[in-house]
Amino acid sequence: MNVNVRGRTRHYRTVTFNPARNEVLLVEQRLLPHEFKIVATKNFRETAAAIRDMMVRGAGAIGATAAYGLAQGARAFRERELQKFHRHVDSVYQALSAARPTAVDPVNAMNGVRATMRAGKTVEEQQRLALAAAEEFARENVAHCEAIGRHGAKLIRNGMNILTHCNAGWLAFVDVGTATAPIYAAQAQKKKYHVFCDETRPRSQGATLTAWELAQQRISHEIIADSAGGHLMQRGEIDLVIVGSDRTLGRTGEVANKIGTYTKAVLAKRHGIPFYVAIPLSTIDWRLKSGFDIPIEERHESEVLGAWGVATNSKLKIQNSKLSYVRVANPTSRARNPGFDVTPPELITGIITPAGIFKPRELWHRRRELGFNG
Amino acid sequence: MNVNVRGRTRHYRTVTFNPARNEVLLVEQRLLPHEFKIVATKNFRETAAAIRDMMVRGAGAIGATAAYGLAQGARAFRERELQKFHRHVDSVYQALSAARPTAVDPVNAMNGVRATMRAGKTVEEQQRLALAAAEEFARENVAHCEAIGRHGAKLIRNGMNILTHCNAGWLAFVDVGTATAPIYAAQAQKKKYHVFCDETRPRSQGATLTAWELAQQRISHEIIADSAGGHLMQRGEIDLVIVGSDRTLGRTGEVANKIGTYTKAVLAKRHGIPFYVAIPLSTIDWRLKSGFDIPIEERHESEVLGAWGVATNSKLKIQNSKLSYVRVANPTSRARNPGFDVTPPELITGIITPAGIFKPRELWHRRRELGFNG
Repeated sequence: MNVNVRGRTRHYRTVTFNPARNEVLLVEQRLLPHEFKIVATKNFRETAAAIRDMMVRGAGAIGATAAYGLAQGARAFRERELQKFHRHVDSVYQALSAARPTAVDPVNAMNGVRATMRAGKTVEEQQRLALAAAEEFARENVAHCEAIGRHGAKLIRNGMNILTHCNAGWLAFVDVGTATAPIYAAQAQKKKYHVFCDETRPRSQGATLTAWELAQQRISHEIIADSAGGHLMQRGEIDLVIVGSDRTLGRTGEVANKIGTYTKAVLAKRHGIPFYVAIPLSTIDWRLKSGFDIPIEERHESEVLGAWGVATNSKLKIQNSKLSYVRVANPTSRARNPGFDVTPPELITGIITPAGIFKPRELWHRRRELGFNG
Repeated sequence: MNVNVRGRTRHYRTVTFNPARNEVLLVEQRLLPHEFKIVATKNFRETAAAIRDMMVRGAGAIGATAAYGLAQGARAFRERELQKFHRHVDSVYQALSAARPTAVDPVNAMNGVRATMRAGKTVEEQQRLALAAAEEFARENVAHCEAIGRHGAKLIRNGMNILTHCNAGWLAFVDVGTATAPIYAAQAQKKKYHVFCDETRPRSQGATLTAWELAQQRISHEIIADSAGGHLMQRGEIDLVIVGSDRTLGRTGEVANKIGTYTKAVLAKRHGIPFYVAIPLSTIDWRLKSGFDIPIEERHESEVLGAWGVATNSKLKIQNSKLSYVRVANPTSRARNPGFDVTPPELITGIITPAGIFKPRELWHRRRELGFNG
């Protein structure tokens, strides 16, 4: 999507590949929103480190990064013996999958690349196929997000105020994003609307990443405290809620997403405001039978007890782009920090998928067209 | 309430008066939770500045501070002529009421002091009566909070998890507080329970002031992000919600309080969790006929766009107690910052007053015993 660099608007993707230099090109997300920088990883170990250290984050983005990283590692092999090549590729695979051990997207993406590679008869052919498969993974990731945008844009009418939570934007995918896809597609259709970004404590992805994306795209938006959405709904200032999802249960229609999503769904229901969840097919879990079986990650308490930001002067103006952590809370208090919550299907108006918009409980009936092969 | 100073537990009030030195003694709240300090204001102008600059904040606390400030100013008068004395007292009154022009508590408190003074026949007698009236205001403020505690403590059972939002603690009153009063009273009754403090973005009064109070009192507690309460309720981890109120409509039972209160009430209702509001009589508005007539203060966006805290080292350990502001949000984004919201009576289980616990819609029927003189 758009990024304004030194007064000029340019188009970037979160993850791309430079075949001539065998480099993965990544938006350095840890510097955002205060600095925009593209980093080239020169070998698969640097690519694995970029995933591990969260230079790149978000399901689709780390999937594509791992796919490119596997191709990058494969292409760096300089000999001809296939068996030795496969041992090398195995070690690349291990390094990349160990970077975020609980994430499923890198593993799924790399399994796809490896399956495609095997059709090749020589090392060189397999190297070529690896890159083609990684490129195809990235292309499909963008195409799916664009399809979500096409379906979701129909929900957005002129003059609407849209609330979103956390960041399910292009930075979390190869491009376009999921919760943001309808917003970007509606902009291309010249619709006028306003977006409220929940700041999304404790990690503030709404105030930092989503707000940055919308600002770069010149979309009218304001950040609000997570506590303000209920009040705005009560006063009729919100017409539509769109969020992303970390995991959606295909059997029940329950949606696990960033902590606070459930609260917004409860409020939307009370006020009769449509509540939509935009998801790529890769986040549908066809196995689990209940949302209570979804493990809720308890994250480090330091996230709740303080905040990351850039230092300011006495007039609260930014001094430089170096991030620092301030302790906000009482020094002798502790915190609980559940990272996700689960929203039940009765609170969800519809689930926006690349294949169309469905009621949450329809997912199971539509499982074939949504990619379930069980 | 308790404060642990250099390893010893001592008892403090938010506002007291030293007659020998004619000084108002205040907890310097802007340094909390990182530093505890009592400041003595030497004359009524310093006392007005303490109110204006929010060294002292909270309805009851600034009421008592203004009452003492008026007595302090009156007692500093060194002549005998009554008319000149009254002109002097008027200027003291003006200075103190101008310190927080929209607050009603300082004005109400000072009107009470002035009415009592007038019974005196000499300057000296009026000076003595002024201090007696200020002392009586402070005493009554504490007594009302203690009565709230007695009534509210009955709601707290052993093993309960209690959620509170923002700070309606002793720091906001002369002592004891309102939302905290039942919690402190239950502790005196040796009940065991746990308190979750909403951090209460954007100003974080829950993470700073309420958590500090509970830590000093050695009450089991944890801070949570404002978005986490819904999830904890869903998982059965919250049994009772108690909040304070900035303004409660005596005619309708609607409650205006810190932004986010309404959201917690909606969630509590959904989960069948009792939701109580603790209020001093001074915050009942007998005039307004609808919550939509309550003006909702839109505060400065910098509160949402960043955070105040103390600097930490690379291990996130606090370096010193100097507060600084970091910008968290995207530098080119703006924010909306409504400071309060309104909770309708159907979401409120009961209102804990010094005169007992009432259903919100009972307030009007009970208006005589709740101090309505209209």
